[in-house]
Amino acid sequence: MAESKTPVKVAFQGERGAYSEEAARRLLGESAETVAQRSFEEMFEAVSRGETLCAAVPIENSLAGSVHKNYDLLLEHDLTIIGEVNVRIVHNLIAAPGVSTPQIRRVYSHPVALAQCERFLRAHPQMEPVPAYDTAGSVKMVMERKRPDEGAIAGASAAQVYGAQIVIPGIESHQQNFTRFLLLARPDRAPSIRTTSQGKELKTSIVLRLANKPGMLFKALAVFALRDIDLTKIESRPIEGRPWEYSFYLDFLADAAEPRAERALSHLGELAESIRVLGCYPRADPSEA
Amino acid sequence: MAESKTPVKVAFQGERGAYSEEAARRLLGESAETVAQRSFEEMFEAVSRGETLCAAVPIENSLAGSVHKNYDLLLEHDLTIIGEVNVRIVHNLIAAPGVSTPQIRRVYSHPVALAQCERFLRAHPQMEPVPAYDTAGSVKMVMERKRPDEGAIAGASAAQVYGAQIVIPGIESHQQNFTRFLLLARPDRAPSIRTTSQGKELKTSIVLRLANKPGMLFKALAVFALRDIDLTKIESRPIEGRPWEYSFYLDFLADAAEPRAERALSHLGELAESIRVLGCYPRADPSEA
Repeated sequence: MAESKTPVKVAFQGERGAYSEEAARRLLGESAETVAQRSFEEMFEAVSRGETLCAAVPIENSLAGSVHKNYDLLLEHDLTIIGEVNVRIVHNLIAAPGVSTPQIRRVYSHPVALAQCERFLRAHPQMEPVPAYDTAGSVKMVMERKRPDEGAIAGASAAQVYGAQIVIPGIESHQQNFTRFLLLARPDRAPSIRTTSQGKELKTSIVLRLANKPGMLFKALAVFALRDIDLTKIESRPIEGRPWEYSFYLDFLADAAEPRAERALSHLGELAESIRVLGCYPRADPSEA
Repeated sequence: MAESKTPVKVAFQGERGAYSEEAARRLLGESAETVAQRSFEEMFEAVSRGETLCAAVPIENSLAGSVHKNYDLLLEHDLTIIGEVNVRIVHNLIAAPGVSTPQIRRVYSHPVALAQCERFLRAHPQMEPVPAYDTAGSVKMVMERKRPDEGAIAGASAAQVYGAQIVIPGIESHQQNFTRFLLLARPDRAPSIRTTSQGKELKTSIVLRLANKPGMLFKALAVFALRDIDLTKIESRPIEGRPWEYSFYLDFLADAAEPRAERALSHLGELAESIRVLGCYPRADPSEA
C-alpha cells in the first residue's frame, strides 16, 4: 500500500482504544492519525467541516443490529461512503494491574457491551454491571481511580492504551460478534483517499423514499431482482412528519457505474420519490465474518 | 363495550403515569387494572407466567423508529398480538407545585424524550437535560425530592398521578409524534379478552427467516404483492450466530384466516426457512396518526 507523506486524519467516536479506532486503523493503515470525538454528531461535523479527512462510523453489529443514529446522520450530511470493514468484537474484563477477579465488585461499560457479556456477568453475581457512556472510556475512568474493586469491559487495545491489564479475556456471550464500520469522507476529498481495501468486489449503498402506495417496496426490489443484483441489507427509518412512512436504506453488490447497476438505478428513479447514492466502495471481506 | 366482572390485569413497562399505561387503558378501557413492570423483559415474563392477562408494549415511534428490544422479545416468547393503538406523544415540562420556569436548572427524562424536546431545551440553555430511566419515573423522583430547581419531561397523566404541575405543556419539537403499542396475551388466554377495538379492519403480523440467497426478500414480498395485499411495515433484526443474516418482521392488511391471506402464507411457506404468525388483530385507526 502506497502512503501519502502526511498521515490521513480520521475521526472516530469514543475514547482512545475504542473499537472504532481499531476500525479506522484497519481501513487506513497504521500511519493514520486518529482523532477522538465525543459523539456521533461531532464526528460527522468534524468531517463535514474538513477538520479530519474522513470518519470511521459503526453502522451495524451482528448481534445488536443497526446503529440507527448513524443511518439518520448519513441523511443529514453530504458525506460519501468510501470503504467498510468488519471488526470482530472481543470483550475483556479489564482492571488496574494487580487487581484479581474476586476483588472486582463493579464493572463499567457501554450498555450494549454489558448486554453482550450477560452470560459472564450472570456467572459472576458479585460483579455489579454499571452502564457507562463508552467501553474504552470505562477503562480510562477505572485507571484514573485505580480502585481495587472496579473493572471495565472493553477491547484489548483499550487495556494497552491506558496501561491496564486484561483480567479475563474473551468474556462475550457469543463469538459471532462483529461490527461493520463505514469510512466516510466529503465527496470533494474522497478521490484523494487511499484505503487498505482497494480492488475488491464493489458494494453500493443508497437511500430512497417511496410513495405510500401498496406494492411500492416490492417494485423497488424488483429493479434489482430482475437484474440479478444481490441485496445485502435493507433498513427502514421513519420519515419525520409522516407517521408510519419510511426511508429505505439498501446495500447491493455492484459497481454503481456498471451498466447493469446504472439501469437499475434509472429504473428505480421511475418509481421512487427520491434516491440518493450514499457511496460505492470495496466490500469488506465476507470471510472475516 | 361489555366488561367482564373482574377487571383485566394488564402489564406495562415504566412507572405509573407512563405513556404505556395510557396505551393499556386505551386498549382495554378505564376499568383495566394496570400493573407496572421495571423492564420490558419483566413485562413479557409477567404475561407468560400468567401474572397478568396481557401487556401493552411500545413497538414503534413515528420519530425515533422501532423499539428493537421488543421485536426481539416477541421472538423469545410465545405470546400473540391481539390489538394495537397509536398514542399521540405530548411531552410537558413538569415540576412541583409553585415552581416556575426560570427556577428550573435540571430537567430529567428518558433520553428519547429529551431528544424529542431538543428545540425547547436549546431555547432554554439554563436547563441542563439529565438522562433518566423513565419519563413518568422522572416526575416521581422530582416530586419525592421537591427541589425548586428540578423539573421532568413526561406526559400529562404522570403530572396528575404524582400531584405535580405542568409548567409548560406541549414542548416536543414535532407534533407528528406517535407511539404504536401492541397488546399481547398468551395464546390460550387471548380468546377471552375483549379489547376496545373490536370489528375494525384486520392486520396480521408475521416474522420469517429466509435462506441467504439472492432475490429471496423480493420473492417473499411477491407473495403479498401478487395478491394485492398491502404491507404496512417491514423490520429486519439480526440472527444470533449468523452475521449479516436477518429475521424479517412484516405487517400486512388482511385477516390471516381469509383465503387470500391463507394462500399468501402457504406460498411464503414454500420460500421461507420458517414463518411464525405473531397475531391477527384490529388495525389502529389510521386517522389517529
